Amino acid sequence: MPAEPNVNKLPDYLKLNDAFQQIRNNVRTTPLIKSDTLSELIRGEVFVKAESLQITGAFKFRGAFYRLSNLTEPQKKQGVTSYSSGNFAAGLSAAGQLLGIPVRLVMPHDAPQSKINNARRYGAEVTLCQCNIPSREEAASDMASKMANDHGAVLLHPFDDHEIIIGQASVALELQEQLAMTGKACDHILCPVGGGSLVAGSSLVFGDNTQVWAVEVDGYQGMGISLEKGRRSRAKGHILCDCDALLALEPGIANLDIVLQTGVRGITVNTQQAHDAVRLSFQEMNLVLEPSGAVAIAAVMENPALFENKTVVAVGSGGNVDPDKYASILQSGYS
Amino acid sequence: MPAEPNVNKLPDYLKLNDAFQQIRNNVRTTPLIKSDTLSELIRGEVFVKAESLQITGAFKFRGAFYRLSNLTEPQKKQGVTSYSSGNFAAGLSAAGQLLGIPVRLVMPHDAPQSKINNARRYGAEVTLCQCNIPSREEAASDMASKMANDHGAVLLHPFDDHEIIIGQASVALELQEQLAMTGKACDHILCPVGGGSLVAGSSLVFGDNTQVWAVEVDGYQGMGISLEKGRRSRAKGHILCDCDALLALEPGIANLDIVLQTGVRGITVNTQQAHDAVRLSFQEMNLVLEPSGAVAIAAVMENPALFENKTVVAVGSGGNVDPDKYASILQSGYS
Repeated sequence: MPAEPNVNKLPDYLKLNDAFQQIRNNVRTTPLIKSDTLSELIRGEVFVKAESLQITGAFKFRGAFYRLSNLTEPQKKQGVTSYSSGNFAAGLSAAGQLLGIPVRLVMPHDAPQSKINNARRYGAEVTLCQCNIPSREEAASDMASKMANDHGAVLLHPFDDHEIIIGQASVALELQEQLAMTGKACDHILCPVGGGSLVAGSSLVFGDNTQVWAVEVDGYQGMGISLEKGRRSRAKGHILCDCDALLALEPGIANLDIVLQTGVRGITVNTQQAHDAVRLSFQEMNLVLEPSGAVAIAAVMENPALFENKTVVAVGSGGNVDPDKYASILQSGYS
Repeated sequence: MPAEPNVNKLPDYLKLNDAFQQIRNNVRTTPLIKSDTLSELIRGEVFVKAESLQITGAFKFRGAFYRLSNLTEPQKKQGVTSYSSGNFAAGLSAAGQLLGIPVRLVMPHDAPQSKINNARRYGAEVTLCQCNIPSREEAASDMASKMANDHGAVLLHPFDDHEIIIGQASVALELQEQLAMTGKACDHILCPVGGGSLVAGSSLVFGDNTQVWAVEVDGYQGMGISLEKGRRSRAKGHILCDCDALLALEPGIANLDIVLQTGVRGITVNTQQAHDAVRLSFQEMNLVLEPSGAVAIAAVMENPALFENKTVVAVGSGGNVDPDKYASILQSGYS
């Protein structure tokens, strides 16, 4: 059974740190790369936490590995079922393979081929969901739920799950440690947000001196609207958008509960701005980012005044993009 | 004055480690990324040392920073002059900017625009050399020599210099430390070779249990030919090749002296194989590598039998490639 969202008692720092220590030998320590261009832009210091270099190319591996590690032995034998647009799929598959836990996945039929291949490569059984109603995420979720029932497997929600949120928090703990080694503290951290597990986990790590930002893409800013209204709200969707990892229409319940308590704020960028950030990451940092993975960087590029003179970390994740798509993004900026 | 190549007495481990400790807070610790594809191919473990994520996008920053740090105070005031096809240029410029040392550079007129921009961005005075006779490297070297004379500046050789070799050795020390943390030892290390500072430095670090490989590109395998003949020999050049960082026709004198004593072996790959490695690095590891920076990975892909069942590190460096060029490499592999 998935953990019930525990809506009021937040995991404390000790719990988060225990989780980080538990998984740190199994996840990659990803580099924190300073961007001179963005640092000049804000007259401060901007670092990119390159989770695109994490196992399976996105931070999702962290939460998946932590979640699966903590299943009971009978649950591990039964295996898990989940759904994902791609990066969680690959992370869960790789974690399952490493831990010897069977993974069944439902993915949207129009997920990038590289993401579908990634999940299969790590031994998951992938079923493509053809339906887009009420949204492609929700159709896939319904199908996964049915499959879990049929197989007696544990149904995992890809982000609305306290254990997964705790696993993703290791990104924030790791970068905090890396910054501390250079004597710096993090004034702002920006996270790409689909359902909100990374931003929720990160917001649990930092105290009042750090502003945590949820960065979403235009049309899918369910978290931003929910933060404004103070209750779970739904974005409109239906905007053509290649940020395929960020197309959740509303935030997770557990995720929103956390970010409302921790004072997270929202920023929205558009696809064109995400592409600009993809090109900057290529040109200056030699990082391959998919459009979804570049939105936090785009948010700094588009809102320099918010970050003036500060130490800022933008999480860059993931890096799973089809070569033709990537080539066309690179070329469109320089024509 | 540049250090005279000291042809017989090799720097010992202590000296190399002192250098590493001296610069490690100023260089980035770059990640060691496991490639599942290459590991499966050799039925062992293959890691890429991602020096494309080093400051200025290549390992060259390490040697440049160490060399400049150890100039005398009067030399630091006078500044330095050097020549480079690009990656050393950027590394030297950034090191000079950080240390407040003026840098004058000669670069070939046909160096990639991104590399010329990189050097200028870090405050170096860049002069483009139009001449390709006897080779574009040697013409640029002659011009730099004349400029150093005119300005009373220290003339630095980009690779044929013991201090620079010692600085580059930090790549090997760092990856040795990273592997040791996982309980592994390095059986093979493969380095991209232009003039040979990285491979010479790396070969000083490892003992008899590690085979060090100098990987060159077809037509420019001066090091490989020299290793075979046991004396400094010249490659033919004149092959159309976009591995622009590897076009030196013969190895440095100090470099060759070292690698002849340390038992380095040579491998040659062609441009097409380098492109295959660029695509693999994009697809599997989310690393942007320029063709020159991918040749060590290509050497593993092309010679799996040499590395069967072993622990192998291929150095990936650099990542400075123009976007149109990169897009065309990505697309050419999937048409």
